[in-house]
Amino acid sequence: MGEGPRTAAVMDTIRRRIGSRALAPGDRLPSIRGLAASLGVSPSTVVEAYDRLAAEGLVRSRPGSGFYAAGPVPPPGLAEIGPRLDRAVDPFWVSRQSLDADAATPKPGCGWLPAEWMPNAALRRAARGLARADDAVLSYYGGTRGPLALRRLLARGFAGEGLDIGPDRILLTGSGTQAIDLICRFLLRPGDTVLIDDPGYFNFQALLRAHRAEIVGVPYTASGPDPDRFAEVLAAHRPRLYLTNSALHNPTGATLSPAVAHRLLNAAAAHDVTIVEDDIFAEFEPEPSPRLAALDGLARVIRVGSFSKTLSASVRCGYVAAREDWIEALVDLQVATSFGGVSPVAAALVLGALGDGGYRRHLDAVRRRLARARRDAAARLDPLGIRPWLMPRGGFYLWCRLPGGRDAASVARAALRDGVVLAPGDVFSVSRTAGGFMRFNVAQMDDPRVVPVLERALATAGD
Amino acid sequence: MGEGPRTAAVMDTIRRRIGSRALAPGDRLPSIRGLAASLGVSPSTVVEAYDRLAAEGLVRSRPGSGFYAAGPVPPPGLAEIGPRLDRAVDPFWVSRQSLDADAATPKPGCGWLPAEWMPNAALRRAARGLARADDAVLSYYGGTRGPLALRRLLARGFAGEGLDIGPDRILLTGSGTQAIDLICRFLLRPGDTVLIDDPGYFNFQALLRAHRAEIVGVPYTASGPDPDRFAEVLAAHRPRLYLTNSALHNPTGATLSPAVAHRLLNAAAAHDVTIVEDDIFAEFEPEPSPRLAALDGLARVIRVGSFSKTLSASVRCGYVAAREDWIEALVDLQVATSFGGVSPVAAALVLGALGDGGYRRHLDAVRRRLARARRDAAARLDPLGIRPWLMPRGGFYLWCRLPGGRDAASVARAALRDGVVLAPGDVFSVSRTAGGFMRFNVAQMDDPRVVPVLERALATAGD
Repeated sequence: MGEGPRTAAVMDTIRRRIGSRALAPGDRLPSIRGLAASLGVSPSTVVEAYDRLAAEGLVRSRPGSGFYAAGPVPPPGLAEIGPRLDRAVDPFWVSRQSLDADAATPKPGCGWLPAEWMPNAALRRAARGLARADDAVLSYYGGTRGPLALRRLLARGFAGEGLDIGPDRILLTGSGTQAIDLICRFLLRPGDTVLIDDPGYFNFQALLRAHRAEIVGVPYTASGPDPDRFAEVLAAHRPRLYLTNSALHNPTGATLSPAVAHRLLNAAAAHDVTIVEDDIFAEFEPEPSPRLAALDGLARVIRVGSFSKTLSASVRCGYVAAREDWIEALVDLQVATSFGGVSPVAAALVLGALGDGGYRRHLDAVRRRLARARRDAAARLDPLGIRPWLMPRGGFYLWCRLPGGRDAASVARAALRDGVVLAPGDVFSVSRTAGGFMRFNVAQMDDPRVVPVLERALATAGD
Repeated sequence: MGEGPRTAAVMDTIRRRIGSRALAPGDRLPSIRGLAASLGVSPSTVVEAYDRLAAEGLVRSRPGSGFYAAGPVPPPGLAEIGPRLDRAVDPFWVSRQSLDADAATPKPGCGWLPAEWMPNAALRRAARGLARADDAVLSYYGGTRGPLALRRLLARGFAGEGLDIGPDRILLTGSGTQAIDLICRFLLRPGDTVLIDDPGYFNFQALLRAHRAEIVGVPYTASGPDPDRFAEVLAAHRPRLYLTNSALHNPTGATLSPAVAHRLLNAAAAHDVTIVEDDIFAEFEPEPSPRLAALDGLARVIRVGSFSKTLSASVRCGYVAAREDWIEALVDLQVATSFGGVSPVAAALVLGALGDGGYRRHLDAVRRRLARARRDAAARLDPLGIRPWLMPRGGFYLWCRLPGGRDAASVARAALRDGVVLAPGDVFSVSRTAGGFMRFNVAQMDDPRVVPVLERALATAGD
């Protein structure tokens, strides 16, 4: 008697699972009753299928304990895959290595403060407040722009910087990166050119590649992008967007000067380029510096930011401030691609913590602590011949030149083998001309392993 | 004496803000000291600029109270814009109207349960637990796949459905929609064809349009997509993806039969089509039904879901279960486009609430309550001549035919004028052949305004 179509289907199901490694050799097969229920067949059909597969040698039965996958079976189509233990040093390198490193790994290459530097007391109070919030806050998707109270608080902060806009021109998002991603979806078509700083934040490259954009770089100087090169690149490449950090530029820690800011805006206007200003490090500034968004009044500048650096990276909340018609289009895109916007629970935690009396004092203390940490880190790196390109006014980055033309990628690979995550220069450089630089996070340098590992890695990488 | 370049720049700044309506007529100009600081110029430069603008008539000074924008000024390039009060009845219509409606508006068209139906006590306990969590949970981005404990809990649930995979094949995301969006970024190129159910969840259309995909539909029957048409469409259009809900299909509430499931998988295999199975309503099922993901063992099926319908839409957390190599690629895409993955705070709240002893009992109670609500809603709609296409086994939707060939979009527009948000059939239909249907959320029908408004709207829409 041949097998019926249902038995054949059950057998195919198990064959596929073994073929795709969903069932590895030695794995127990699903229970007969369970599989029967989920496939909508009778238990006796499953028994029949398992018996036939056992006859084929694909599974084994152990009396009293059920059926197991035999094997090994070559995994069709998966042979080329495998865990990417030896990732290329590309724009994902720093993020993947630092996000997935375990808690004990020193991470001078990462882009965040140690947890004990963060305003955890304010966040805990906000979480207790959340436990008493209305059912609606706990349950619902929330409005498409995000809670009005948080948008109002942001608008008041912008007014203090000379940017006067109403809360309707602010859209809350799931993160600063998501905000930029929405803008790219709105303004870019595949093949469009986007201008970024060189060096600049590595994830801008990763994000723009996901949008299939052409990326061109402009050299970053101690007072912002080189304005002559900026104008030349605009004329030569006609980019659709320019994506930058103004205050405490990542990775250099440099600050845009007023004169450069004016020249950038004039050049952008002449070539009809939209500017996305990611202001994620703004709160680390000792005093305000020029902002493209404030100078321009959000005509062609879009301002983006988040709370990940100063409040919490775990509570995901970012924002976009832009022209009203653009915000309306971004709302549609956010609904289409995330359904709701920001989590109302996340917004409630942010609002609670920002409104906490301790938050401003906490920020003042963090700024002072970072000033000391910048000096200490520079003093510890100096004996290794590692020198800051400039001493930033604020923030947690030092962009440093390595001694003797060492290749930062080789140094970073050697340090990773010793369990330390670094941020080699070329991941920040679209032209890959920053191979002699390394970005250090001064708040992540206290572990006693960091300097010895770095010293050994420099020696390994040779001259 | 002519104005200096800095004065001119300040004047340009204010002109642009007025031109873009950042400063509306009558708005107070930024304070002199504030603008001077943010533009990096001296206060006297700002005074000079304001005086010159006053001389031009663009601003007015009021003695003792500062400077104000005069106006009106035509807003360049913004003339065609405006609040979209009269939105087209398109795939965004239901989401925008229901997400942004105020709390008191009855929303039988929306896609969620009333807040008082949700497990708020479990969520409040989870929020109190969060207030005591480690600093790391409150502060850090977290690992790229999301917290292991929650992925393990999901894997145990999948095993109970006959899908045996390890937690490494699960990626947590910011929402179920974000999970599908990541998959589309990974698998689609602009112009690729994607197959969806007709009728089917409206936001799939919005999402696919954001990816510039060509959309084709397959008629949905009481036991799943019509398998003959499915095979024909695969042969004729060669879609890259098929995007569907299996259990408690949205909007019809129908359930995929085992026979149809097998035929779909065979046809998909023959044409090398990847299937995305969005299982967001699974927990509302009275007993498990066939799952494409379980039948296929995640070889060509990708399973997607979230906790938005049963636990909280505010705490944003979704997931993808897929082939290991695909998960690895999706991780990179999620880092590029959101930086971190799911919020660790959100994952902690979900894990706390799912692990809460009350959650299973709560779900049982909700399923019983929904069974009553389905019957009650059908009984209330019956006198209006509104009849369910079928009576679903679970969930909160009734897909109903309107009487006398009424146009659902006209009925929905009339009801919206009376303050009730409905879900007209054509927003669910890529072929726009569901104009005589309406989706009702049976948990949102208790408000006494709903039936009278509906009755009036039916009368207004005429025969």
